[in-house]
Amino acid sequence: MKYIESAKNTNIKQWKKLHTKKERTKTGLFLVEGIHLVEEALKSGIVKELMVTSPDRLPSHIETDIELYELSEEAFSAMTETETPQHIAAVCTVPVFEEKKYERILLLDAVQDPGNLGTLIRTADAAGLDAVILGDGTVDAFNGKTLRSAQGSHFHLPIIKQTLQQAITELKEQGIPVYGSALKDAKEFRSVTAEGPFALIVGNEGAGIDPEILQMTDQNLYVPMYGQAESLNVAVAAAVLVYHLRG
Amino acid sequence: MKYIESAKNTNIKQWKKLHTKKERTKTGLFLVEGIHLVEEALKSGIVKELMVTSPDRLPSHIETDIELYELSEEAFSAMTETETPQHIAAVCTVPVFEEKKYERILLLDAVQDPGNLGTLIRTADAAGLDAVILGDGTVDAFNGKTLRSAQGSHFHLPIIKQTLQQAITELKEQGIPVYGSALKDAKEFRSVTAEGPFALIVGNEGAGIDPEILQMTDQNLYVPMYGQAESLNVAVAAAVLVYHLRG
Repeated sequence: MKYIESAKNTNIKQWKKLHTKKERTKTGLFLVEGIHLVEEALKSGIVKELMVTSPDRLPSHIETDIELYELSEEAFSAMTETETPQHIAAVCTVPVFEEKKYERILLLDAVQDPGNLGTLIRTADAAGLDAVILGDGTVDAFNGKTLRSAQGSHFHLPIIKQTLQQAITELKEQGIPVYGSALKDAKEFRSVTAEGPFALIVGNEGAGIDPEILQMTDQNLYVPMYGQAESLNVAVAAAVLVYHLRG
Repeated sequence: MKYIESAKNTNIKQWKKLHTKKERTKTGLFLVEGIHLVEEALKSGIVKELMVTSPDRLPSHIETDIELYELSEEAFSAMTETETPQHIAAVCTVPVFEEKKYERILLLDAVQDPGNLGTLIRTADAAGLDAVILGDGTVDAFNGKTLRSAQGSHFHLPIIKQTLQQAITELKEQGIPVYGSALKDAKEFRSVTAEGPFALIVGNEGAGIDPEILQMTDQNLYVPMYGQAESLNVAVAAAVLVYHLRG
């Protein structure tokens, strides 16, 4: 295990850069912090480097090809973005999943908030969906906040970047019904009885789904507003809809 | 309209203090930022003071007893906690609602995250619930993050602090069925067909509902995990449950 004392160490600077989308795209790597996410990453076999503030922080089972680093508290803090010290972090490669036919899919149109994106990925995992497709304008899924709010679900199902127009065309060719979510020109969600495969699209926090995309769906659905709220949070709406659609 | 140039002005300091729970409790006041929340507050008639960065930021209809302040950009920034300049803010008294019999209630046991609390309040509003009860250990509802994520729902339904044991006892006396949410010793939520009044309890993000409280419910419910996620976000779980329970 290598020891790093200084916050100005080259590795520290390099790991810190992984907080930026640019560096993640360039290297194909991302950084997870905290024991829960590190353990999920270890289970997926995607950890390249593991950093701890003391050897007793190391999990008991670690693949031998993982590079281990002990960091001073100062060096560790310099690398991380969370305020609460996590004492463990890992550099990971993006998880790769076996190719299979996706039958239940969540599609996201320009979801902007990293926390919402994480909650959407966690919800898709909980509801047993096969994949999450990130359309254009959706925030990068491998930033710290999205990773934290997804609580490890990044390691459980594929997160795919694809233009939604193309994704919808492909899903329709496969005979999978595609549902949009909209406040207007839509059916009350419980009027649709879904059985088997489905694709659900939810949209941007402010603007909803692009009208052009809404026109491509088989049916648009709404969750009724019984009170005075104008809308639901996007992750909340997606959860109500997917738990209904999966029957 | 009074003009405030300096970030060190006494009013600025006083308003800034409203970001702390201590000051809100002491004064019975809270601060909202941004045009959407200010307009919701104006509709509720609870605005005492209104602050803008220029007179053209003032909404067209303002009650005459509201004190108006124009603040320099610098003074405004010093008072607010959001990074994006909102140009308008208001000091409000806590909304008061007419006494009525609550028939559909959401109860929260030690919900810690301000964003989750806001999303729960927004969801309760959307689902047409009559009140949200904040049990012991739940974060204060009138902090900036909770206000922002609730998007104005604070002004639509009562948010009441009460020990949950007492609340549950009262609800049972009124014959309202009380449902808890739990991962163990619980029924799959769709096996319960609710019609009419109900109370639903959701709990702390990590620990769930206090076991003592879970024992007081009429029935505990779970949302099935079809994938590998261990649980849903608390606001997401509450949404799936309340939209089912309200039928």
